[in-house]
Amino acid sequence: MQLPIDIDRNSSLNLQTQVFEQIRAMILAGQLRAGQRLPSSRHLCQQLQVSRITITLALARLADEGYIDTAKSVGTFVSREIPEQALHAIQGNLVHKTPPDLVAQIRSRLPEIRSHSLVNQHAPRTGIDFWVGRPDARSFPLRTWTRLTNKRLLSAGSALTEYRDPTGVPELRDAIANHLRPARGIIAEPEQIIITGGCQEALNLVSRMLLAPGTDAIVESPGYAGASYLFESYGARLHHIRVDEKGLDVAQLPDVAGAVAYVTPSHQYPMGYTLPLDRRLELLAWAVRTDSYIVEDDYDSDFRYVGSPLAALKALDRANRVFYVGTFSKCLGAGLRLGYIVVPPELMPIARRYKALMNYGQPWLEQAVLADFMNTGGYARHLRKIRQHYRGKRDALLKALDLRFGQTVTIGAEAGMHMVWRTPNHLPPASEIVARVLNCGVGVYDLSPRSAVITSGAPENDRYLIFGYSSLSEKQISMGIERLADELEKTHVLARTRVLAATASKQRVL
Amino acid sequence: MQLPIDIDRNSSLNLQTQVFEQIRAMILAGQLRAGQRLPSSRHLCQQLQVSRITITLALARLADEGYIDTAKSVGTFVSREIPEQALHAIQGNLVHKTPPDLVAQIRSRLPEIRSHSLVNQHAPRTGIDFWVGRPDARSFPLRTWTRLTNKRLLSAGSALTEYRDPTGVPELRDAIANHLRPARGIIAEPEQIIITGGCQEALNLVSRMLLAPGTDAIVESPGYAGASYLFESYGARLHHIRVDEKGLDVAQLPDVAGAVAYVTPSHQYPMGYTLPLDRRLELLAWAVRTDSYIVEDDYDSDFRYVGSPLAALKALDRANRVFYVGTFSKCLGAGLRLGYIVVPPELMPIARRYKALMNYGQPWLEQAVLADFMNTGGYARHLRKIRQHYRGKRDALLKALDLRFGQTVTIGAEAGMHMVWRTPNHLPPASEIVARVLNCGVGVYDLSPRSAVITSGAPENDRYLIFGYSSLSEKQISMGIERLADELEKTHVLARTRVLAATASKQRVL
Repeated sequence: MQLPIDIDRNSSLNLQTQVFEQIRAMILAGQLRAGQRLPSSRHLCQQLQVSRITITLALARLADEGYIDTAKSVGTFVSREIPEQALHAIQGNLVHKTPPDLVAQIRSRLPEIRSHSLVNQHAPRTGIDFWVGRPDARSFPLRTWTRLTNKRLLSAGSALTEYRDPTGVPELRDAIANHLRPARGIIAEPEQIIITGGCQEALNLVSRMLLAPGTDAIVESPGYAGASYLFESYGARLHHIRVDEKGLDVAQLPDVAGAVAYVTPSHQYPMGYTLPLDRRLELLAWAVRTDSYIVEDDYDSDFRYVGSPLAALKALDRANRVFYVGTFSKCLGAGLRLGYIVVPPELMPIARRYKALMNYGQPWLEQAVLADFMNTGGYARHLRKIRQHYRGKRDALLKALDLRFGQTVTIGAEAGMHMVWRTPNHLPPASEIVARVLNCGVGVYDLSPRSAVITSGAPENDRYLIFGYSSLSEKQISMGIERLADELEKTHVLARTRVLAATASKQRVL
Repeated sequence: MQLPIDIDRNSSLNLQTQVFEQIRAMILAGQLRAGQRLPSSRHLCQQLQVSRITITLALARLADEGYIDTAKSVGTFVSREIPEQALHAIQGNLVHKTPPDLVAQIRSRLPEIRSHSLVNQHAPRTGIDFWVGRPDARSFPLRTWTRLTNKRLLSAGSALTEYRDPTGVPELRDAIANHLRPARGIIAEPEQIIITGGCQEALNLVSRMLLAPGTDAIVESPGYAGASYLFESYGARLHHIRVDEKGLDVAQLPDVAGAVAYVTPSHQYPMGYTLPLDRRLELLAWAVRTDSYIVEDDYDSDFRYVGSPLAALKALDRANRVFYVGTFSKCLGAGLRLGYIVVPPELMPIARRYKALMNYGQPWLEQAVLADFMNTGGYARHLRKIRQHYRGKRDALLKALDLRFGQTVTIGAEAGMHMVWRTPNHLPPASEIVARVLNCGVGVYDLSPRSAVITSGAPENDRYLIFGYSSLSEKQISMGIERLADELEKTHVLARTRVLAATASKQRVL
């Protein structure tokens, strides 16, 4: 008997593996049956033109894994212990491809899940992209970071190989606690802080703790899609509360017990409003009254260009009703995947257990390097430096808009890394502008899921354009606005030409 | 009027922040009421003996945040817009400490959660610790890793600052797919692979997809606590299936539809058995028959000291019923927090969305460096090297046990980083040995939650001791067993002495 084995000498798999895999496949497919005798290794060598050791190793592996039995001086046989019935069951899909109807059936059983994209799927191929929330790659403190990384690697000891406390590296939790008091007015113990995989994981941690199917979850509208979709995935009952020109309209908060409210009071996402003190106090009072929790996402509060930095909502939280979420994705870089959450002390033991069950903590190196960066003053210096840079970019954007569109109305320009432009009424709707300027190599964004924004669909939403300016140079910013204005003027002029032409032809008719 | 402000010149907070925080606190506590006039900044300077600019900045910040209104040439007043009612509500807990009865009430509403510990909480203070699952810190390829890290940092571009595909760095997913075929017999596309925060996050991802309250979840007994507790936290109905001397007793699998079964077929945790082919096939057939999914945790299969490496269960999975989970925590280091999961293709779009909602991916640097390490052959070399090291440690342990206890019965010594010793019947129960040798500076572990093991509590479990040997030197291993044997012999001798003494006194009586 010759086995139909096909040796491919150009394959990246070695000969032994090829022989092993093909005999195994024949046994599993039932082409070789239990108890059947295999050709001797000498015969196999001759047939396949491979060395004796190749065959011996392949057969040894088959024997080790239980596919064949080798009876000394009698021969080699397909194992009799392979359960025929089980074989039939797994043979159903030899092609490793699940049939479409089964796929549909499997998927229909799983809950409907949406997720947001933080990677721009609509970026202009070549050109200028005002995509939101991107730090300037050139501003990353690469030299210092590399130096600190090398220092930490040199003295890593067992830090790279051992499991650690899932809540994070102690020095980093200390450094964050020390940063929060002067910078955000938050008095938090390091023991209340958990290091997370960006702010998204912090939101996920709160969700796992507090959300069950039917739990009331409050989100802002327009608001951050990453929070809405997450709450939705836990089966929460979502309340989309309107954002007006002062931020979240707290008077509209529902009178429900045990809810979770997600808010961005420092610089509302996406609109950029700062929630005023009276609303902050009312929001906190609502949480106490309704026995609810608030999740404060303070994603870009490090950048404030007008006046002093505002204290966080958490700084007012006397009743331990606020989870404070911070991230280093905006002030340093999203590729570090470092964020944190300040947890009310009495919930910390439970939060810690959830973090252990979720992934047992963040990688050590980034945490250790960031702790050193903060403790040696590098972080404060970096913030001062990029605050200056981003202010310049912001000013360039405001200037460019004013230059081409006259007195422009912008929102949220006093802080953060993006602003919103309320377009004049004579311009086309925002969605149309987005599509048109994308064609001329400029990415600007409207309030839509592709910008990680969900809205209630109010008609005025189509007058807003979002501009992330932090990752562009001042030159790119003014060029981008030039191109945008040129493109819009083209139609404007065309429209005017058409009117003139129409008038002319009318005159001709007269 | 003088405000009761207390300036501490030794505080780490600057004077401006101290003034700001104390006036803010008085307003929030109702000590300063809406509309009340504040002392002039000149008076405050004199009272507090601080500079005018300090007071001006503190007052400006209070005004920015909405606590005070400054009416030019009239004076400074506590804002009238602070809602009194909201103030009363948040004043409830001025001390930032939730009263114990409220804590109890809050906690009672949250589900009961258990988590495992991968950090040894019971380590001997000074001494030799046979804690399971720790790679040898001295074997970490630090020089190569540092070199590759520097190379990647130098050319990082925007990789540190931008968001990326949440499933992971493409080169790493490629490298893992290329590794899996020859090493584990698994044919997987890179598009089926998600990089996770260790194997725990991979388990969490599957749980979020497939588990709802009441879903049947099958775990091994004894088995890995990190999986049991996780499934429990999702409200799954747990079935603890007995592990016999061939591994999971598949005949006991319940006849339930749509279940999830967690298994460790390569090297059962903790017992170390390798699941034979017939049981593997029956397990797969069960999954097809009951429309269930299998999660294969292949945590330490890189180390096999006898015969060739066994193919994974996933390699037999023709019906796409197996999620394959791998980790770099054992072969490289847990501090990297790098694992992965091979997802059945039809479930990949959903798995990807969950990963985005959970934390939007792993940090870039570790992934990029690992990809380079794998693609340049460093990983294969590292595995060969530490396989050799660990084999030496394993042999040292077997030899030391044999030397002191005669023909010892060990389980699972042919693979992995730990083995199980079935203690002779004349020795005390395992739990007693653990406690006694801990006192003489040696950590050995029984089948109990402190070793991240859950059991059904079968009486024979108290005859098993787990020895992780990978992180100890051969010298430490033999010393550890010496001390253990000495300690046990002490009682043995004492017991014998007692018997002799009893006999002697008996004789005397006669």
